[in-house]
Amino acid sequence: MFKVAILGATGYTALELLKLLRRHPFVEVVAVTSRENTNPIAVVHPSLTGQYDVNCENLKPTDLAERGVDTVFSCLPHTATAAVAPELLELGMKVIDFGADYRLNSAEVFNKWYNVTHPDPDRVPNTPYGLPELFRDQIKGARLVANPGCYPTSAILPLAPLLKNDYISPDDVIIDSKSGVSGAGRKPSLKNLYPECNEAISAYGVGTHRHTPEIEEILMNASGREAKVVFTPHLTPMDRGILTTTYSKPLKSATQEELLAYLREFYENEPFVQVVDALPSTKDVIYTNRCHITVRVVGPRVVTVSVIDNLIKGAAGAAVQNFNLIHDLDETTALI
Amino acid sequence: MFKVAILGATGYTALELLKLLRRHPFVEVVAVTSRENTNPIAVVHPSLTGQYDVNCENLKPTDLAERGVDTVFSCLPHTATAAVAPELLELGMKVIDFGADYRLNSAEVFNKWYNVTHPDPDRVPNTPYGLPELFRDQIKGARLVANPGCYPTSAILPLAPLLKNDYISPDDVIIDSKSGVSGAGRKPSLKNLYPECNEAISAYGVGTHRHTPEIEEILMNASGREAKVVFTPHLTPMDRGILTTTYSKPLKSATQEELLAYLREFYENEPFVQVVDALPSTKDVIYTNRCHITVRVVGPRVVTVSVIDNLIKGAAGAAVQNFNLIHDLDETTALI
Amino acid sequence: MFKVAILGATGYTALELLKLLRRHPFVEVVAVTSRENTNPIAVVHPSLTGQYDVNCENLKPTDLAERGVDTVFSCLPHTATAAVAPELLELGMKVIDFGADYRLNSAEVFNKWYNVTHPDPDRVPNTPYGLPELFRDQIKGARLVANPGCYPTSAILPLAPLLKNDYISPDDVIIDSKSGVSGAGRKPSLKNLYPECNEAISAYGVGTHRHTPEIEEILMNASGREAKVVFTPHLTPMDRGILTTTYSKPLKSATQEELLAYLREFYENEPFVQVVDALPSTKDVIYTNRCHITVRVVGPRVVTVSVIDNLIKGAAGAAVQNFNLIHDLDETTALI
Amino acid sequence: MFKVAILGATGYTALELLKLLRRHPFVEVVAVTSRENTNPIAVVHPSLTGQYDVNCENLKPTDLAERGVDTVFSCLPHTATAAVAPELLELGMKVIDFGADYRLNSAEVFNKWYNVTHPDPDRVPNTPYGLPELFRDQIKGARLVANPGCYPTSAILPLAPLLKNDYISPDDVIIDSKSGVSGAGRKPSLKNLYPECNEAISAYGVGTHRHTPEIEEILMNASGREAKVVFTPHLTPMDRGILTTTYSKPLKSATQEELLAYLREFYENEPFVQVVDALPSTKDVIYTNRCHITVRVVGPRVVTVSVIDNLIKGAAGAAVQNFNLIHDLDETTALI
Repeated sequence: MFKVAILGATGYTALELLKLLRRHPFVEVVAVTSRENTNPIAVVHPSLTGQYDVNCENLKPTDLAERGVDTVFSCLPHTATAAVAPELLELGMKVIDFGADYRLNSAEVFNKWYNVTHPDPDRVPNTPYGLPELFRDQIKGARLVANPGCYPTSAILPLAPLLKNDYISPDDVIIDSKSGVSGAGRKPSLKNLYPECNEAISAYGVGTHRHTPEIEEILMNASGREAKVVFTPHLTPMDRGILTTTYSKPLKSATQEELLAYLREFYENEPFVQVVDALPSTKDVIYTNRCHITVRVVGPRVVTVSVIDNLIKGAAGAAVQNFNLIHDLDETTALI
Repeated sequence: MFKVAILGATGYTALELLKLLRRHPFVEVVAVTSRENTNPIAVVHPSLTGQYDVNCENLKPTDLAERGVDTVFSCLPHTATAAVAPELLELGMKVIDFGADYRLNSAEVFNKWYNVTHPDPDRVPNTPYGLPELFRDQIKGARLVANPGCYPTSAILPLAPLLKNDYISPDDVIIDSKSGVSGAGRKPSLKNLYPECNEAISAYGVGTHRHTPEIEEILMNASGREAKVVFTPHLTPMDRGILTTTYSKPLKSATQEELLAYLREFYENEPFVQVVDALPSTKDVIYTNRCHITVRVVGPRVVTVSVIDNLIKGAAGAAVQNFNLIHDLDETTALI
Repeated sequence: MFKVAILGATGYTALELLKLLRRHPFVEVVAVTSRENTNPIAVVHPSLTGQYDVNCENLKPTDLAERGVDTVFSCLPHTATAAVAPELLELGMKVIDFGADYRLNSAEVFNKWYNVTHPDPDRVPNTPYGLPELFRDQIKGARLVANPGCYPTSAILPLAPLLKNDYISPDDVIIDSKSGVSGAGRKPSLKNLYPECNEAISAYGVGTHRHTPEIEEILMNASGREAKVVFTPHLTPMDRGILTTTYSKPLKSATQEELLAYLREFYENEPFVQVVDALPSTKDVIYTNRCHITVRVVGPRVVTVSVIDNLIKGAAGAAVQNFNLIHDLDETTALI
Repeated sequence: MFKVAILGATGYTALELLKLLRRHPFVEVVAVTSRENTNPIAVVHPSLTGQYDVNCENLKPTDLAERGVDTVFSCLPHTATAAVAPELLELGMKVIDFGADYRLNSAEVFNKWYNVTHPDPDRVPNTPYGLPELFRDQIKGARLVANPGCYPTSAILPLAPLLKNDYISPDDVIIDSKSGVSGAGRKPSLKNLYPECNEAISAYGVGTHRHTPEIEEILMNASGREAKVVFTPHLTPMDRGILTTTYSKPLKSATQEELLAYLREFYENEPFVQVVDALPSTKDVIYTNRCHITVRVVGPRVVTVSVIDNLIKGAAGAAVQNFNLIHDLDETTALI
């Protein structure tokens, strides 16, 4: 039985993680933290009533070590994880970070996009990117894993294989994503108020969203060449789910059927990625750890459409998948 | 042309009022106020872009008088209107209050339910209740009108006629209301966050909602006897609309057809109340100033179902209807 | 390993059942039936992609027996299950019926409310009502179980305990329920079209809904006296979830705290019923097999508020719970 | 007073048209047609209760002429309008077609995309495209107008001005549109069922949507060169509204501010097009005849974001705007 702690337990990703961990036969949640909230977790998240008997606490790394925590899931805001990760690791704990602190290859790029100074720059280039479908081997031995962003997961899974085999060019990729509102977090603000979001779709962060460099780095990794991405996220009136439509230039001639067959083969042993013929809906994958992908050839463009649950495959589910990998458990444990 | 001002212009009821007033041929909006916001109204409410060229300002009654304001629509929180209404009236302006300050018959009852001290207690018992279908004559000559609450409007319109003719008893009335989330206002809080409200229905204020005494007083007025109401509001995952289901005891025998015919006759000259045979949906009336009502006899109970738009017939539309009445205009101006 | 079949596999309850059974360690789905559809189940329900390798088939009871089916889950319309259940039972299979065919005590009452002639009247009075919290002992030994209706589950769980201890009277119970649209089924019709249901709440079947006699019979069973129910269902703009608000007359004096304590004790060993202090939201229980209940005393009435997922605790989850019981498995298997 | 008829009055666009015409001081609706429905229009559309006293009828052009109809709004499916338009025109009536029959420049292209034989090919190239912002002069004198498609309206309004001034290239335009479900019509089918569409976003018609040639022709008209469009529509969980995001290649260097200023000047006298600085939401324009547009420069691409109400500016509102133009009325009549 692995004892785990969740840092920053009051938000939506932590809630999903707690729901998944209820089904995990080898996990015991021994601590859930919050800077200010001291309520029972079932008061913070009423859907956990009768499921967990644990209160939010403001805990230090040494407190977690004393409780025998093996792995820390951190749902803290950016830079907050990197501020405590070194001590957690030094105390012998493993860390899975839901945030962006260790996703990029360089602290400098991070500092530029996040407009901060990274508290733990040296670990940035050496931390595996926690997308098992592409980086399983690096994750397996890791003690610190950077869980991918939700948008990047939805965009990379269809694009990386096509880039790896030079089907498409990395230098003019348009990524148009549509996300449910849970992606905007649980902190009240005018922009995520029900009557503002309901019956409304809007673009945000056009050209400036912080997931852009993350996507570009992983696509570059796949293609071996610099990737140039135009990324537009949209806030969609639904709780959860991301649908990402991408538009790329072909590098070599291939029919739609060939591309579908190639993707199907690429992912044939993956339990959580399904290549489908029909155009997928977010509804096909919400509340699951799965990604459905299809591809179309439209005139001068290769178009991919992919769907995930932003809170599961895009966050908590991927974290459990990574947890299973670093502990050498069946990768699908608690995720079916 | 009547010059009007709107106090507290940043919320949803003020927005609806501004939309309606755009269609009013005899109204000019000369001031919109906010304590803190100083933005153009089209920045506060982007749906007004190109419609109004006016900024939010923090204005005093004398400022409004200087601009020649004839009528003030107040969307301020409770007690805030009563704090300024005396001066506004003294300066010669008319006041239509969206809030509860002048709805009840007694300041004492108000103080008890709202847990405050009413700033203008003497006007409370003498202010007409702005539901034209029941109190048109009092409203016509008034300089101060108390616009009804949204829930009360939806409950009183079906029940008052049945009580007036002793079809039902006033002493055991159950009112189960379902409202869209705009009724919770535009101030960000966890309870009206999109991911909390979406795909969710919940009851709130069971037995304690402040619209209870308002409903009881008007039902008492209709029946001539004390009314006892059990009122349960529910937050429903939709922008707007209230559906109210009531359950009453019959006082005398009447078939469903008789009750329908009676209600139809009662409201036959009303432009904004339609008695319908089929069970109505909120969708039939949202974005309008209308109320649809039907009635059923179910075993030992008379059941009414009524629907309104909480922001229009339940707020801004009723206010314009009252405005038209006090200015002796066609009551339907700007409301078709 | 128990081999199971699902009759009528193209609808929403069958989909939920298939999702739950994926997590059941002792179940193998060997047949899914449809009269007309012959597609792979993942084409019928894209969210099952990669989960099941089985096609819809039009199968007879003998076909199922040949495949070694142990238990049949029937999601067929009313009377269709009772038309095949006798043969299925005779062939040695167990049957869990999602429909109403065996829920009532008498085929006569069934015939009256459903306006048909029951094909298997003799089994009607002897079939246990599959609500484990009240009828666990009868279910345990059964070979045929009548899975409860979704509305009845939401109303009976709060009311039956209060009736059993004479806290409330059974002869004037008002039940106002709000259900997500999945309860209306997957057959296209104007009434369940997106633009008709979205941003809309409406009542339907006022005084005529077929769940009324089912509720009355079980409440009568609980109180020992005839129960008289006024039941109003409402179609609510959300996928799933039922919130039921009930209004009853107290039979003896009891405070809200006493009623809460009594209910908490009544359900203290139940894994799927939680008595909560705060007013619950459907969101607290959707996608789970749980029911949250609270109670309030409001003037002359006892008010209960309860929430379930109509497709899980109100259908597929209850069916799995019953399956576990009749096979002497841990009742929570596949339901956490 | 102009007498008008609406052909195909049972759908959503006809409903919106009827709502708008209620506010039109110079219009009398004397006929609403349906092939099969003979109900009062308020039974077909309950939101029209008390607004219109007219029944659906199956009427021939001569019937309409006998009633003195001046203008026919046709909401019939494609080819159905072109089958009756010649006779309507010959009888002296004017026709505004909501469908695609007369939108393209050539009947051949129409036949290819719609896989039919156009019943009235000669009028196709000579009928003005009813987008007043671009073709006001042609519309003014017309007796037959082709009301634009909803997606084309949302895409053309931001793109055409940029093409006219050679800011962007017409040969690699990506158009990613998100529409509310009302765009899928009112005919029940699995794909527009509430539980299929709610909490779900999906792409459809990728590379094959029939609005593609319509967009390409008008963009070609604006740029003077062949336009090549990749168009992807998405079904979004909301009633109404379209948000269109476009990605184009710049032809000459221009800053974001220059593009905004240019668009603002281009549309400065248009009552229904507003160029805005902030990223717009569909919520800013639903239930209005307005289009909000903004533009961004993102790396190698010009990105536009535009929003309309698909049923109003994308259908019924544009039709009224065209009606006003061909009758030399104030273009905004009934549209404020």
